[in-house]
Amino acid sequence: MAKGASISGFPEWLPAERVVEQRVIDTLRRIFELNGFIGIETRAVETGASLLKKGETSKEIYLLSRLQEVTAGQENDTPLPERLGLHFDLTVPLSRYVVEHSGDLAFPFKRWQIQKVWRGERPQEGRFREFVQADIDVVGNGTLPEHYEVELPLVMVTALEQLRAFGLPKATVHANNRKLSEGFYRGLGLTDIEGVLREIDKLDKIGPDEVAKLLVSECGADAGQAAACLELADMTAANGDELRSKFDALCDEHRIPKDSDAYALASQGVATLAMIVDEAAVILPGAVIADLKIARGLDYYTGSVYETFLDSASALGSICSGGRYDNLASHGNRTYPGVGLSIGLSRLVSYMLHTAHATATRVSPAAVLVAVWDEERRGESNRIAAALRSRGIAADVAPTAAKLGKQIKYADKLGIPYVWFPEGADGQEGAPDEVKNIVTGEQTQADRATWTPADGYALQDVKLGD
Amino acid sequence: MAKGASISGFPEWLPAERVVEQRVIDTLRRIFELNGFIGIETRAVETGASLLKKGETSKEIYLLSRLQEVTAGQENDTPLPERLGLHFDLTVPLSRYVVEHSGDLAFPFKRWQIQKVWRGERPQEGRFREFVQADIDVVGNGTLPEHYEVELPLVMVTALEQLRAFGLPKATVHANNRKLSEGFYRGLGLTDIEGVLREIDKLDKIGPDEVAKLLVSECGADAGQAAACLELADMTAANGDELRSKFDALCDEHRIPKDSDAYALASQGVATLAMIVDEAAVILPGAVIADLKIARGLDYYTGSVYETFLDSASALGSICSGGRYDNLASHGNRTYPGVGLSIGLSRLVSYMLHTAHATATRVSPAAVLVAVWDEERRGESNRIAAALRSRGIAADVAPTAAKLGKQIKYADKLGIPYVWFPEGADGQEGAPDEVKNIVTGEQTQADRATWTPADGYALQDVKLGD
Repeated sequence: MAKGASISGFPEWLPAERVVEQRVIDTLRRIFELNGFIGIETRAVETGASLLKKGETSKEIYLLSRLQEVTAGQENDTPLPERLGLHFDLTVPLSRYVVEHSGDLAFPFKRWQIQKVWRGERPQEGRFREFVQADIDVVGNGTLPEHYEVELPLVMVTALEQLRAFGLPKATVHANNRKLSEGFYRGLGLTDIEGVLREIDKLDKIGPDEVAKLLVSECGADAGQAAACLELADMTAANGDELRSKFDALCDEHRIPKDSDAYALASQGVATLAMIVDEAAVILPGAVIADLKIARGLDYYTGSVYETFLDSASALGSICSGGRYDNLASHGNRTYPGVGLSIGLSRLVSYMLHTAHATATRVSPAAVLVAVWDEERRGESNRIAAALRSRGIAADVAPTAAKLGKQIKYADKLGIPYVWFPEGADGQEGAPDEVKNIVTGEQTQADRATWTPADGYALQDVKLGD
Repeated sequence: MAKGASISGFPEWLPAERVVEQRVIDTLRRIFELNGFIGIETRAVETGASLLKKGETSKEIYLLSRLQEVTAGQENDTPLPERLGLHFDLTVPLSRYVVEHSGDLAFPFKRWQIQKVWRGERPQEGRFREFVQADIDVVGNGTLPEHYEVELPLVMVTALEQLRAFGLPKATVHANNRKLSEGFYRGLGLTDIEGVLREIDKLDKIGPDEVAKLLVSECGADAGQAAACLELADMTAANGDELRSKFDALCDEHRIPKDSDAYALASQGVATLAMIVDEAAVILPGAVIADLKIARGLDYYTGSVYETFLDSASALGSICSGGRYDNLASHGNRTYPGVGLSIGLSRLVSYMLHTAHATATRVSPAAVLVAVWDEERRGESNRIAAALRSRGIAADVAPTAAKLGKQIKYADKLGIPYVWFPEGADGQEGAPDEVKNIVTGEQTQADRATWTPADGYALQDVKLGD
């Protein structure tokens, strides 16, 4: 590794790899905008006060200092809440943006945002400290209809479905609902709901036996309650009817009465979750399932919660997560409830590049390299390139008037499919221009004002490797 | 201003403003790619060693610290060269990227890069501490043909010409050449070339009289030499012939012999500069002029230098600057010469928004809002939206089944031009769908499988205000 080169956790792509990332970003943006989401870009920094809610200082954040302050030894003169730090997600900036600009936004505010975020982690294998997130959220002013809890995961699976062209396996959203879980746990007689959710969230990592032990030791559950929690977590359903009947059967089994407050709360969650899977089944069958072990450890979710897994890449874990939070932001006595999901894009791009072997069909965006016979005639080659560009055909001009073989080699190295010969293959004054497809070898006379590349050679694209 | 809201120097746009910025970025990318430039994105951080070449610590840089280190008081345990800092331009990252990946790149490497950069400045009016730069550079491996010094400014003026659609005034590139200046100064008998360039660079700020004094007091010039330097700086030319004849006349006047080394050096610069203005005159007449006062204070330029001014917004200063540097990067005994120009994009966008009053034709990307008669029939509205989206028509669905007037008001607030009525204006079961253009009031029956928006209403766009 060269001096001053790679820094652990800060991925950087080669040009052909960057094309893949760029296309992924373009694709997500297109889908988000097709669905009426509004793009914003927030500044990269927030104040310590915004980043460290409740004074919590265990977060993995990069704080900024001006070099001048550092060299003057004044780095810590500013109190933590007033210091600037890089945002670690796009949710904190969104909540700040919504409060700051509420007078200028129409609610519900549907926004997409694709930006880099930073995590000030200790360097370690496979963890990114700089990466791109792609988020969609809908934020209401005071209230937010539940149907957004149905629509947002559908937009995300539609988007992820489009990314299969870049080598992403089929994605399935696993949805659950906090009200459903809480109602059930309360129906069992448990009271430390956050505690139970936190332990259930560990299921994939430590397995049911360990979780059961923790439910007993940490959350005041007895063995039967712990077993019931695990039974609920084990439940999945592909449609609303299946969900309702399985859930009711479990309530009956554990004697949770249908007229209890707990059951009423759970029923709200069941209804929303049923709506999600049923609506998804119409739009994209099999794309969303009810999976009642999804807990999302974070405590701010208040309704639906989502995680998304890839069919043949479960090692990646959840690639797109989120949920509903009734208190995304607040200002005075006004609250802004939201529903959102977030894709950790860099990990997906890394998978596409290194496992699916996605790469650019060519390194250069140019479809044509215009040859140069000698430097005195470079102007003529520039004219040809300009004529092609004026018709939307990306064109480059040979770097030097080297031997033709060398010029063709340059085109080949960049993957440029066509080489244009001003005044024909020998450059004889007055001869008609010719163009050669260096992939197929086909060479024809060509008019700069009308010629177009053949299908499949016009635009830089992404292809999958073996 | 709300708590935790705006931070001086960190601009952030409202949704309709962000559309302008996004279109500007899209436009630049399109022009750069049409010209065969390859897009890269570098990480936001570099090491102190990269950022602080020659140990210079006066730069305006943000250094990063992990919060964990700050709270543990270990913030300064890492020596400055190993600390991470945010990049302050896109040139330092490019030179590091080229050295790091030289084995994977084809040279000359033509790259575009549009990214945020950060300057750790003291907060002050009108200075951005976070902003977007748009750069193009060509980097050679060992050598780099001079014709790129002609082509790069032309790509930039072509791009800036496209930005006039967003309210940017006409831009003119002012080009000069370091060899021309140096040869002339040496021909006059001056030896402190960097010193003279540094003082000449102050012309616009302090005027010719003060510069003349400084040339005498700081650079060892006598009054006649100082006057000659100012005469050269006063020279402009619209074509190569004019440049050559004016320059030769000035050399004759000051008795610089044609057979001197100094004149030979200057002649190289004259030839390149003549080529630039003559080639530009063919492609975009008037877009590039020779302006011999352009000095660019920085000492690493070795050939052409460029600054770009807007016709009716000279207060903005140079909006796009750059030049040739024969030693952009080096590694061992290999050097990488480059030619590049950089646009400070955020200042341009700010001008477009606040002076040219550019704004989005609509806030939402959606062309259609599908109405909802009651929540039970929302699924049907979702189907209609999905059908439209599948044909590339961006569509949103009303947030609630409110009274129709309220739904139309929501569309109006977001600038969505069409409202779609499932089963007609009254939502009577079995009736054909209707769609209303709420701008013109026109309402027609419509088929979700075939209907398309009228010209001018299909896509979100940018318009200029009064």
